[in-house]
Amino acid sequence: MGSMFTNSKLFLLLAVALLSTPLPKDANTVSNAGPEYTADAQLKLPENYREWVFLSTDYHPISDPLKMQKMGHDVFNNIFVNPEAYKAFVQTGTWPDKTMLVFEGRRAESVSMNNQSGDVQGSIEGLAVHVKDEARFPGKWAFFGFHGDKTAKMIPVTASCYSCHAARGAVDTTFVQFYPTLLPIATSKDTLSAAYRQEILNAAPITK
Amino acid sequence: MGSMFTNSKLFLLLAVALLSTPLPKDANTVSNAGPEYTADAQLKLPENYREWVFLSTDYHPISDPLKMQKMGHDVFNNIFVNPEAYKAFVQTGTWPDKTMLVFEGRRAESVSMNNQSGDVQGSIEGLAVHVKDEARFPGKWAFFGFHGDKTAKMIPVTASCYSCHAARGAVDTTFVQFYPTLLPIATSKDTLSAAYRQEILNAAPITK
Repeated sequence: MGSMFTNSKLFLLLAVALLSTPLPKDANTVSNAGPEYTADAQLKLPENYREWVFLSTDYHPISDPLKMQKMGHDVFNNIFVNPEAYKAFVQTGTWPDKTMLVFEGRRAESVSMNNQSGDVQGSIEGLAVHVKDEARFPGKWAFFGFHGDKTAKMIPVTASCYSCHAARGAVDTTFVQFYPTLLPIATSKDTLSAAYRQEILNAAPITK
Repeated sequence: MGSMFTNSKLFLLLAVALLSTPLPKDANTVSNAGPEYTADAQLKLPENYREWVFLSTDYHPISDPLKMQKMGHDVFNNIFVNPEAYKAFVQTGTWPDKTMLVFEGRRAESVSMNNQSGDVQGSIEGLAVHVKDEARFPGKWAFFGFHGDKTAKMIPVTASCYSCHAARGAVDTTFVQFYPTLLPIATSKDTLSAAYRQEILNAAPITK
């Protein structure tokens, strides 16, 4: 069979897949326990997050100045949320206590096949969790960045992720404006942040 | 607050989100019934597919010649699978009877915020389902393309999707080579198709 696949790309793709994080052995063990911490206040990685509800993927080309410096190649970011928080959001338009949003960054790999070309997802390059735990965090939410371990320290509240999410997040410091199935729910339930509503007003075309 | 968001883009993004397909009212009603058909052999849309297990997203830039002709802009493709089939795949490395893979195409929207730029997901532009139903289809699998309705006719077996999936799919006529959490499982359980294994061999660097 004549292959239109670029051979080196295909080989790289397989190699990347083989190195990817393995799935948990038992797909039935979806945790419903909410965030769990170690004795020294690190967040435990919710290892079954790939079985949670998918919210969206965005794509950052190499021309993104921040990403270019960090990675040197195109990347995908996948966002997952624990099913209990998703169900609550569908009903209320906002996040309940114990919400966990998982941010999974993956290397983009170019492929072409039968006259189509595009980027597919390769190995994991970044993993972070945004946790709502009202009794634990003075700002209700905290970020944790994982670096190859099963536990992660909290990112200090002085980091820019906190200020940017607070200023720009459409719902409760989260970027619901980029989750296409959730934004209509938040809009209809009137849970959009004041700052985001003002951005929308500022962005609207002027009509007489 | 000074907005670094492109105003027209932000407005478009909101408009797109408002027009998106609404979610089912009750997120608890995940169907476990397998594919359902109408009396005239159309497939019923599995309306809760966004609560199924996410497999991957790929990204097709406008430079893709086929997509360019069809859409004229960049697109994302999201792939979801029913949870029962996912669990079986994790255990066996291949798909059970009644597997449903949902292909959701979404318009890519460019945004920039706080020195980051990239593409996020807008409105749905394509929806297709790849169903394994061994007793129903002579080739075991069939494709159905939805065009805004809740039911879809089967795509004729002469269409190129069948021949391409059969020739190039890594596992059982499906593109598991592009699902980064599943390819290692299929590899370890030795369920890769003969054609795909040959592609990998052809692509491997020659060593002495």
